Amino acid sequence: MFSTASAVHRTGPATFAGEIAPGWDILGNAHGGYVMALAARACAEATGRPDPVTVTGHFLSPGRPGPVAIEVRVLRVGRRFATASAVVEGGGRTLLAALGSFAEIDGASGPERIEAAPPDLPPPDECVRMEPTDTFPPPFMARVDLRIDPEDARFEPSPGPPRFRGWFRFPDGEALDTIGLLVAADAFPPTAFRSGLPIAWTPTLELTAHVRARPVNGWLRCTFSTRFITGGHLEEDGEIWDETGRLVAQSRQLALLPRHAPRSGAAAS
Amino acid sequence: MFSTASAVHRTGPATFAGEIAPGWDILGNAHGGYVMALAARACAEATGRPDPVTVTGHFLSPGRPGPVAIEVRVLRVGRRFATASAVVEGGGRTLLAALGSFAEIDGASGPERIEAAPPDLPPPDECVRMEPTDTFPPPFMARVDLRIDPEDARFEPSPGPPRFRGWFRFPDGEALDTIGLLVAADAFPPTAFRSGLPIAWTPTLELTAHVRARPVNGWLRCTFSTRFITGGHLEEDGEIWDETGRLVAQSRQLALLPRHAPRSGAAAS
Repeated sequence: MFSTASAVHRTGPATFAGEIAPGWDILGNAHGGYVMALAARACAEATGRPDPVTVTGHFLSPGRPGPVAIEVRVLRVGRRFATASAVVEGGGRTLLAALGSFAEIDGASGPERIEAAPPDLPPPDECVRMEPTDTFPPPFMARVDLRIDPEDARFEPSPGPPRFRGWFRFPDGEALDTIGLLVAADAFPPTAFRSGLPIAWTPTLELTAHVRARPVNGWLRCTFSTRFITGGHLEEDGEIWDETGRLVAQSRQLALLPRHAPRSGAAAS
Repeated sequence: MFSTASAVHRTGPATFAGEIAPGWDILGNAHGGYVMALAARACAEATGRPDPVTVTGHFLSPGRPGPVAIEVRVLRVGRRFATASAVVEGGGRTLLAALGSFAEIDGASGPERIEAAPPDLPPPDECVRMEPTDTFPPPFMARVDLRIDPEDARFEPSPGPPRFRGWFRFPDGEALDTIGLLVAADAFPPTAFRSGLPIAWTPTLELTAHVRARPVNGWLRCTFSTRFITGGHLEEDGEIWDETGRLVAQSRQLALLPRHAPRSGAAAS
């Protein structure tokens, strides 16, 4: 389960150890949001603040199952926020660099104005569950419970901005904390698959997630969309809402486009 | 001018020196995008890659005019991208932590699909120029040439998502490089001023900018909008287009809301 797969323990004043658990992969490469979760756990431990209010990860090398070492540098501890950076190493390579500000999200209210609504989805049982395979959908899909809106699950070109909408939760009723939201923010198929363009894969260069609230236990209602496929990159903007209809997180990732589509396949960094 | 105000020079294997130049402030605090530009210059020098493809800054303390020291750590140098982190110190305080991936943007084409358009603006001469004052608009406005769409310049509540649209350039015909885009990404008044809510100020916690292309010399067409004022924070999403109508950058910042509006004024971090 996610809580054990993302656990870390302190090994020194600024170092933590964890493990990329088997099965958390996309074609053999560790899932990006999961590796970010390992980094965020270490930062949360180091700062004593449990919730990633805003965290950014840059993906440097693909991770493989096995032990990882996480070096954390606490940059500032303020009254509300603590900021830390983390570098995750595994298999002799630097996998991820992260930078985040952490707090204890207390649900205090304040001025509110929302110019959006959660996506209108059929119930989870009427959506298309992503079942894991050795290729696509990836093995990672066994670690999460992802249900895609039937309209999007045909993987046909979107009339408007390419997008995927659907439900997310961890299997077996495991509760999802704010660090688990980092996995949800990176769990859906690439929006480029609905662009109508010959794009085989879009490796993530960077992912930033903002957490606005702790989700209640249950399904998350998610939508990911792309407006700008240009300049060799595309963004994927995510919105994640909990069962009460509250926005719990926003995410944006920058992904690479293949340089010479469609022959070259995935882009190399 | 910006190029001299943002210049840095190497002082050691991993250290750079620069200066927060006078006049680049908002009520005495150095402009956030400008401090990020100092960090980005140091990272670009250290990695040998001139363009910030994606860079994130976390604002830790307000900067004051005077010397700054920038510590850079190069995390990975790949074929296309190099990733580095930077910490900016000044006046005995840590001002900014940044993390970015840099490249040499070569304008190579690739698959393209754009689901948006540059904002439709009156010509710069028919927009409202932000003239610097000691308070608001801030002194910083003398360092840039910012023209706001007359419709937005009334600072009235937006019917839709709170937003500001307008033109940006550096004065005196100074060309703007990709690092200058970081200033543009943080130059407009807070969208919260058009929210209809009693919000006096929204300090930036984190800003991420993605650069898609090098802008041609001339005016930038910009739009900044907010859809989610909730959970004690708001996002500001920016889109920046050059005079050829090309998207050159996207930005998103997470800003703080005052905790007990309207009495407490600006939030403390």
